[in-house]
Amino acid sequence: MDVNVLKKNIARFLREDIGSGDLTSEATLPEDQVGIAEFIAKGSFVVCGMETVAPLVFKTQNEAIEITHTKKDKSLASPGDILLTAKGPVLDLLKAERLALNLVQHLCGIATFTSRFVNEVKPLPVKILDTRKTTPGLRILEKYAVRVGGGHNHRFNLADGILIKDNHIQACGSIKAAVARMREKIPHTMKIEVEATTMEQVRECLSCSVDIIMLDNMEPARMREAVKLAGGRALLEASGGINLDNVRGVAETGVDYISIGALTHSAPACDISMRLQDI
Amino acid sequence: MDVNVLKKNIARFLREDIGSGDLTSEATLPEDQVGIAEFIAKGSFVVCGMETVAPLVFKTQNEAIEITHTKKDKSLASPGDILLTAKGPVLDLLKAERLALNLVQHLCGIATFTSRFVNEVKPLPVKILDTRKTTPGLRILEKYAVRVGGGHNHRFNLADGILIKDNHIQACGSIKAAVARMREKIPHTMKIEVEATTMEQVRECLSCSVDIIMLDNMEPARMREAVKLAGGRALLEASGGINLDNVRGVAETGVDYISIGALTHSAPACDISMRLQDI
Amino acid sequence: MDVNVLKKNIARFLREDIGSGDLTSEATLPEDQVGIAEFIAKGSFVVCGMETVAPLVFKTQNEAIEITHTKKDKSLASPGDILLTAKGPVLDLLKAERLALNLVQHLCGIATFTSRFVNEVKPLPVKILDTRKTTPGLRILEKYAVRVGGGHNHRFNLADGILIKDNHIQACGSIKAAVARMREKIPHTMKIEVEATTMEQVRECLSCSVDIIMLDNMEPARMREAVKLAGGRALLEASGGINLDNVRGVAETGVDYISIGALTHSAPACDISMRLQDI
Amino acid sequence: MDVNVLKKNIARFLREDIGSGDLTSEATLPEDQVGIAEFIAKGSFVVCGMETVAPLVFKTQNEAIEITHTKKDKSLASPGDILLTAKGPVLDLLKAERLALNLVQHLCGIATFTSRFVNEVKPLPVKILDTRKTTPGLRILEKYAVRVGGGHNHRFNLADGILIKDNHIQACGSIKAAVARMREKIPHTMKIEVEATTMEQVRECLSCSVDIIMLDNMEPARMREAVKLAGGRALLEASGGINLDNVRGVAETGVDYISIGALTHSAPACDISMRLQDI
Amino acid sequence: MDVNVLKKNIARFLREDIGSGDLTSEATLPEDQVGIAEFIAKGSFVVCGMETVAPLVFKTQNEAIEITHTKKDKSLASPGDILLTAKGPVLDLLKAERLALNLVQHLCGIATFTSRFVNEVKPLPVKILDTRKTTPGLRILEKYAVRVGGGHNHRFNLADGILIKDNHIQACGSIKAAVARMREKIPHTMKIEVEATTMEQVRECLSCSVDIIMLDNMEPARMREAVKLAGGRALLEASGGINLDNVRGVAETGVDYISIGALTHSAPACDISMRLQDI
Amino acid sequence: MDVNVLKKNIARFLREDIGSGDLTSEATLPEDQVGIAEFIAKGSFVVCGMETVAPLVFKTQNEAIEITHTKKDKSLASPGDILLTAKGPVLDLLKAERLALNLVQHLCGIATFTSRFVNEVKPLPVKILDTRKTTPGLRILEKYAVRVGGGHNHRFNLADGILIKDNHIQACGSIKAAVARMREKIPHTMKIEVEATTMEQVRECLSCSVDIIMLDNMEPARMREAVKLAGGRALLEASGGINLDNVRGVAETGVDYISIGALTHSAPACDISMRLQDI
Repeated sequence: MDVNVLKKNIARFLREDIGSGDLTSEATLPEDQVGIAEFIAKGSFVVCGMETVAPLVFKTQNEAIEITHTKKDKSLASPGDILLTAKGPVLDLLKAERLALNLVQHLCGIATFTSRFVNEVKPLPVKILDTRKTTPGLRILEKYAVRVGGGHNHRFNLADGILIKDNHIQACGSIKAAVARMREKIPHTMKIEVEATTMEQVRECLSCSVDIIMLDNMEPARMREAVKLAGGRALLEASGGINLDNVRGVAETGVDYISIGALTHSAPACDISMRLQDI
Repeated sequence: MDVNVLKKNIARFLREDIGSGDLTSEATLPEDQVGIAEFIAKGSFVVCGMETVAPLVFKTQNEAIEITHTKKDKSLASPGDILLTAKGPVLDLLKAERLALNLVQHLCGIATFTSRFVNEVKPLPVKILDTRKTTPGLRILEKYAVRVGGGHNHRFNLADGILIKDNHIQACGSIKAAVARMREKIPHTMKIEVEATTMEQVRECLSCSVDIIMLDNMEPARMREAVKLAGGRALLEASGGINLDNVRGVAETGVDYISIGALTHSAPACDISMRLQDI
Repeated sequence: MDVNVLKKNIARFLREDIGSGDLTSEATLPEDQVGIAEFIAKGSFVVCGMETVAPLVFKTQNEAIEITHTKKDKSLASPGDILLTAKGPVLDLLKAERLALNLVQHLCGIATFTSRFVNEVKPLPVKILDTRKTTPGLRILEKYAVRVGGGHNHRFNLADGILIKDNHIQACGSIKAAVARMREKIPHTMKIEVEATTMEQVRECLSCSVDIIMLDNMEPARMREAVKLAGGRALLEASGGINLDNVRGVAETGVDYISIGALTHSAPACDISMRLQDI
Repeated sequence: MDVNVLKKNIARFLREDIGSGDLTSEATLPEDQVGIAEFIAKGSFVVCGMETVAPLVFKTQNEAIEITHTKKDKSLASPGDILLTAKGPVLDLLKAERLALNLVQHLCGIATFTSRFVNEVKPLPVKILDTRKTTPGLRILEKYAVRVGGGHNHRFNLADGILIKDNHIQACGSIKAAVARMREKIPHTMKIEVEATTMEQVRECLSCSVDIIMLDNMEPARMREAVKLAGGRALLEASGGINLDNVRGVAETGVDYISIGALTHSAPACDISMRLQDI
Repeated sequence: MDVNVLKKNIARFLREDIGSGDLTSEATLPEDQVGIAEFIAKGSFVVCGMETVAPLVFKTQNEAIEITHTKKDKSLASPGDILLTAKGPVLDLLKAERLALNLVQHLCGIATFTSRFVNEVKPLPVKILDTRKTTPGLRILEKYAVRVGGGHNHRFNLADGILIKDNHIQACGSIKAAVARMREKIPHTMKIEVEATTMEQVRECLSCSVDIIMLDNMEPARMREAVKLAGGRALLEASGGINLDNVRGVAETGVDYISIGALTHSAPACDISMRLQDI
Repeated sequence: MDVNVLKKNIARFLREDIGSGDLTSEATLPEDQVGIAEFIAKGSFVVCGMETVAPLVFKTQNEAIEITHTKKDKSLASPGDILLTAKGPVLDLLKAERLALNLVQHLCGIATFTSRFVNEVKPLPVKILDTRKTTPGLRILEKYAVRVGGGHNHRFNLADGILIKDNHIQACGSIKAAVARMREKIPHTMKIEVEATTMEQVRECLSCSVDIIMLDNMEPARMREAVKLAGGRALLEASGGINLDNVRGVAETGVDYISIGALTHSAPACDISMRLQDI
C-alpha cells in the first residue's frame, strides 16, 4: 500500500465531507486553539487503519497535526481502548474527524469480518480470499483490511490477473483454445485461472495445465472430487455463496482457497468515537 | 443528483477496476462483437440505481452502449426479475460489469435497509434520516439511495448545515452564546441545529429559539418529555444507537426525525448478477 | 474558508500565469538569491486577503517563503502602508507576485465596495448580502471578501439553499404547491426562500409559512407594505437594482436583508504594488 | 482560443455553482420537461461570449442542449436584444444559467470597456493592450474579450514573452548586460521588451537594439521625447496609470502601444438576463 | 489497452503542444474550412498506432474528425504508403498533427526495433520481452508497440509482478527466506520471479520452486548451464546488455525469454509526415 | 523550468510505475530501514537531470529523502562516476529508482546527443535548435536537456511562437497576405517566422520584413544563396533532414540556426545504474 496513492483520494474525501468549510466550528471555535483527540473503541474488534490511514487523514487536513499514539493494525480492541491520539488545531481535528472515523470503522469492520472466516477454518491449510466486489474507490484500502484480518488478496484489477470465465470460453470454443490464446498474449509472470462449473471442465483445465481452477458454486461433494482429481497439479479455489455457516464445510473439502465477496461488500462497520480534550 | 457530478467519479472507479485493460477479455474475445447484458435480481429488494447510475457506468465505459430497459428506482424486485438490459460491444459490457454491479448492489442494499426502518415506523408522522456516516467518495449516491428507500437526508456536508455539538458549546461557554455567534455569521438561509443530551440543554435550546434540537442518546422516556416541553417550538431529532428493534419505540415518543448512521455504513449488499447473451 | 480547498485553485492559477517558467527572471537572476518583498497600498481601502490568501500564494509557489508581516483583514489601509512582507528566493517572489497582487487587489476591491454599502445603511438593523453573481472559480474567496467588508453571505451554491422562483412556481401551479413539494424533499435543516414580485405572492408565502421572502424588484413603498404585512412571521430580503444611491431608501423600509450582485461582479480593483529589496 | 482548453474550466465552474445538485429545481420541475431560454440585453454594450463561451457552458451541462441563435461577438447590443437562444431540458437550462450569465456579463463588460478606450484614440495608429492583471483562472477568456473590444493582447504568461524590469536590470548590473544574457538563453522567436523609466534608460535600450521599450509611468512630454529619440528603431509601449481621461493624450505622443490593466481588472459587468419559455 | 485510459493522457498531451491556442493557424485559416489529412510513410517500418492511437488524438481534439482509412498495426509500411486519412476542420487537423505524428513515429520506432530482435532469433522458441525501462507517461503505449513488433510484455508495474532482486534477498537473508515471505503475502494468481547472478543462486531458486529465474548479466555459457540445470522446472529469462549483435547467441542457449530495455528506451523514431488537402 | 510544473507530472509518473504498491519490496524489506542509494555512470556522457529532476523524483516519493550529492548538469561523466547520492527509507528509494533512472538516462541521452551536434559546428556562430518533435508529456524536460547539451530552444508550443507554413500561405493567398494577417492579430512581443522552400519565397519573406525565415529542406548551395540574399535583414533557420554527417556543411552556409528533430526523438539513452547500501 503506497502512501502517495492514498493521499490523493483522502484529499478528495475531505473535500466531499467539508465542502467549502465547517461553518459551525469556524464560527464558534477560536482559530488557533490546540487540542488532543482520541479514538475510543466502543466494542471488540480487529484494529485496522490506525497505523497509516487515520494518521494520513489528519495529516492531509493539516500537516501540523501530530499523531502521538496508535494501536497496531491486527491487534484486538476492547471497549474503551484508546486506538489513536492526535494533537493539533482543534478546527482541523474536527474537520478530519468524520472522514477518519468513517474510514477506520469500515476497515475495522472488514478486518473483523474476515477474521471470523479465518478463525472458522483454522487450522486447515486453506486461505480466505477477497474478490473484486469492493466498494468503488476504496479497493486498495479494503484489500489491505482483508490482509489485516488474516485473509489474502485475489487479483487487484482486470489488468493484473487472468480469470477465464464462461463468456471467454464460449467465445474461443473451448477451455483449451482460450488458455492457448492467453498463453500467447499475457506476460509470462502471470498465472492463468479458469472458472469451472462441472467436473468435465475441471478435467479440461487440468489437461491444459492451468495454474488455478475456480470451482464456481459447486457442492462440497463435488469440490472434494475435484481436489482428488487435481492431485496437486493445480491450485483450487472455491467460490460462490459461501458464508460463516458453510465455510468450514467448504474448507474441509481440501481446496486451497476460498473467495468470499461478502468480506468487502457486506461487513458491518465497527463502532469507534472521537473524544476531544483541550490542552 | 447532478449527472455531471457523477461522471467524473465513475470514470475514476472504472480505472480502479480495469487498470490498464481487461487482459483476459481482450485476449479471448473478438474486438467488435456486440452482445446484450441483463441484470438479474437474485433476491427481493428495493430497486436503486437502475435509472441513472448503472446506465452511466456503461455509457462512461463506452457511449455506444444502449440501455434498452431499466426497472424503476423505488420499485420492488423479486428473484429472477430483469432489472436492466444493455446492448453494446461485449468487451465494454464486461469491463463495466463489476463496477455497475458493485454500485447497484450497494445502493439497493441501502435503499432496502432504509425501507425496513421506514416500514417499522409507519404510519407515524416521523421521518427517517441518514447521517454523514457514509462511505467516503459515495455520499451523493448513498444519500440518493436513502431517499429511494423512503428516508430523508440530513445535511450533505459541513458547509451546508449547522450542527452545534458539545465541543462548540464548551468553546463558547453556553448554548446561548454559541447560537448567538452562529446567528451573526451564517447565511440567513440556514437553520440552526443543536445537540442536547440533557433536559436542561433542551430548555436552553428552546429559550434561544434554535430551529432543531438533536436529542443525543436519550432514553425514550426523556424524548417523550422533550417533545412535550418543546410543544412544537422546535423540530426534534432523535439520534444515537437506534436499530430495527428499538426504532418503533423511539418513533412513538413523538419526535419529528430519527437519524440512523447504520443506513449507510452497515447495510448488507443485495445480490444481483449479470447475464450476457450474444446477438 | 478551508485552506485545503484554496490550495488546489492557487496552484492552478500559478500555472496559468507562469506557464512553463518565468523566462525573463530565470535568465537574469541568480538562482539562489534571497530577497524581501513588500506589498504597498497605493490608496485607501479595506484590507482583505493578507492573512490567508496572499501568504498561501507565496507558500504554494515555494514553501520556503516566510511571511513575516501581514496587515489584518478588515483593517483600513492608507496610501503607503505596508500590507505584507515576504522573505524568500527572489525568483519565487517574482513568480508569485502577479497572482498574489491580482487576487488581493480584487478582494480588497470587493471588501471596500461592500463596506460602502454597509456604511450607507448604518445603524439600521439590515444586513447587506451577496448573491451567486460571483466570478467563476473565485466564489469562496469573493464571499469571504464580502464578509470582510461587513456584509453577509447568501447561499453558496444551488445545493445548499432553497430559492423558489417564478419558473418553479409556474411548474407546480402555485407557491403553496411548490413549497409543499420542497418540504417533502429537502433536508429539514434548510429554510425555504421564495421570490415574490407582488403583494399577493407575499401573502401566499406567509400563508404557507415560508422562512424567507425575497421581494424582487419592488418599489420601496411596496416593500414597506410587505414588512408590515409580514409582521415578523418571515424574514424579508430586498433584491434587484440596488445601488449606493438607493440602498438607504431600501434599508429604511424595514426589510431584514438587501442582496446586491454588484458587490462581487462590479467592484473596481484596489491599487497595490510589490516592492522588492535584496538582502 | 482552443475549445478543449475551455471545457475543463467550464466543467469546474459548473460544479462550483451547482454543488451536489439544484435542490430547488430538482424538487419542483418535471425531470424531462424541455424549454427554450433566451438571453436578453438590459443595456447597450459590445457583445462577447455568445458565439463560443455561453454555448459551451450549456453544452457542458448537457450535450443535448441546442443553441439555435447567437448574436455575433463584436456586434453591438441594445436593450431588449435577444443575444442567444438555447433549447433543451429546463432543469439543465436552469443549472447552466447562472454560470453562463456570470461569464458573458463579465466578458461583455471587458469588451465594452476596452472599446471605449479604442474609440477614444481613434483614428491614431496606436493599439490598446491588456496586461497580466487578469482575473485568476479567466485569462484566456478575458484576453479574448479584449480582442473582441478592439484591443490587442500583451504576452499571455511569463513563459511566452520577455519583459526585463528594474529587478532584472539591477541583478545584471545594466540593461545591456541583462539583454545580453536574455539573447543567450531565450528562443530566437521571441522579442525582447525592456521597461524604462528614464530617458537615459530609453537610450540604453536603443543602443542594444531591444525590440520593444515600455515607457513606465512617464509624463506625455517625456513619451513624446522618447518617440522622437527612437525614430522607429524600437516599438514603444506606454504603461501605468492610464484611464479614459488621459488615454487620448498618451496616444497623441506617438507611442505604438498603450497597455492598461483596468481593461481586465476593473471593467463593470454588463446586465443580461435569461428568460425561460416552456414549449 | 483500454481506450478510456488513453483519452485522459492524450488530452493532456494536446494541451502541452497547443497551449492556449494555435496562434498561427487561428489567425490565417478560415474557422470552418474542412480538409483531408494523410499520414505518409517516409521509410520502411512496422506500422503501429494507426488503428487506435492516432485516431484517438484527432477525435480528442475534435470529435467531428472522421478517420476514413488506417493501415493495420503490425503491417509493413513502404515509403510513400498512406498510413491514415482523416477528414475534418483544418484547424483541428493542424492542432492534432504534431502530437499524432510524435506518438506514431515513436511507436512505429519501437515496433520496428522490436521486430528486428524478433527476426534475429527466429525460429527459436524464445520470446523477446520489454522491461520497465519505458518513457515516463507512455508505458501502456510502448508496451503495446512491443507486442505489435512481435515481442511480449514483462510486468506492467511494481504491483502486478513479483521480481526478487539482490536487495530483497539480502534483507531476508536468503532466496529461500525471501520466497517464503512472498508466498505468504502475495495473491496466489501471481508467479514469483527471482534474479540470479550465479549458478548457486539458480540452484537455490530451483530448490524453492520459483516460477521464473532471471539470469542477470550472465555469459551465454553460464546460461546454457542454467538451462540444463533447470530442466524445465522453471522459466528462464536472460537479461542485461543484450543487443542486436549478441541476441542470437543468447537465444541459442535455450532460455525461454530475453528481456531488453533498449526496445523502449533507445528505439529511433520512424519518419512519417502529414499532407493536407483542401476539399 | 518551474519546479511546481514538474511536480504534478512526476507524481503521475510514479503512480504509473508503482501502481498500487511495490509488492516485492513491501513484502521483503523492513518498513523503516534507511539506506543510501548512488547513481553510477556506466559510460561517458553529458550529465543532465541530477540537480533538479532526479532529486524531485525522490522527494515526491517521500519528502524525507535527502539528496546529499549531485553532479552538476552540463558536466561530463566518466564510467564509474557517482552522479547522485540519496539517503532515506530503502522502500522509497526503490520505489523511486526506476522512474528516476528512466528520466535521467533519457535526459542525459538528449544532452549528450545535442552536444555532439554542437561540437560538430564549433566554432561557427550558428546555434543548434530543437523542435516540437518531443516525447509527449516530457517537452519541458527535453527542452531543458537540449539547453544542457549546448543547444537552444525553438518555440515551446503553438501559442508562444508564430510559424507560417505552406498551409497557412495557401489559405491566405500569399506570404505577404499571411504575414499581414498575423501582424494584425498577434501580440507585438512575438516575432514572425515563415517557412520557405524556394528562393522566390525567401525573397517574398524579405520584402515583407519577416523576422525569421525557415529554409525547409534546402540544399546547402541554396542556403548559401539565401544567406547572401538576406544580408542580415532576417534570421535564417535551416531545417529538415539534418544529421551528424551533414550538419557541418549546413553550418558553413552561414545560417543562424539549425533545427533538428532527432535531438529529442531519436537520442539513445545513457546507461546509469543505482547502487544501494544499507547504513
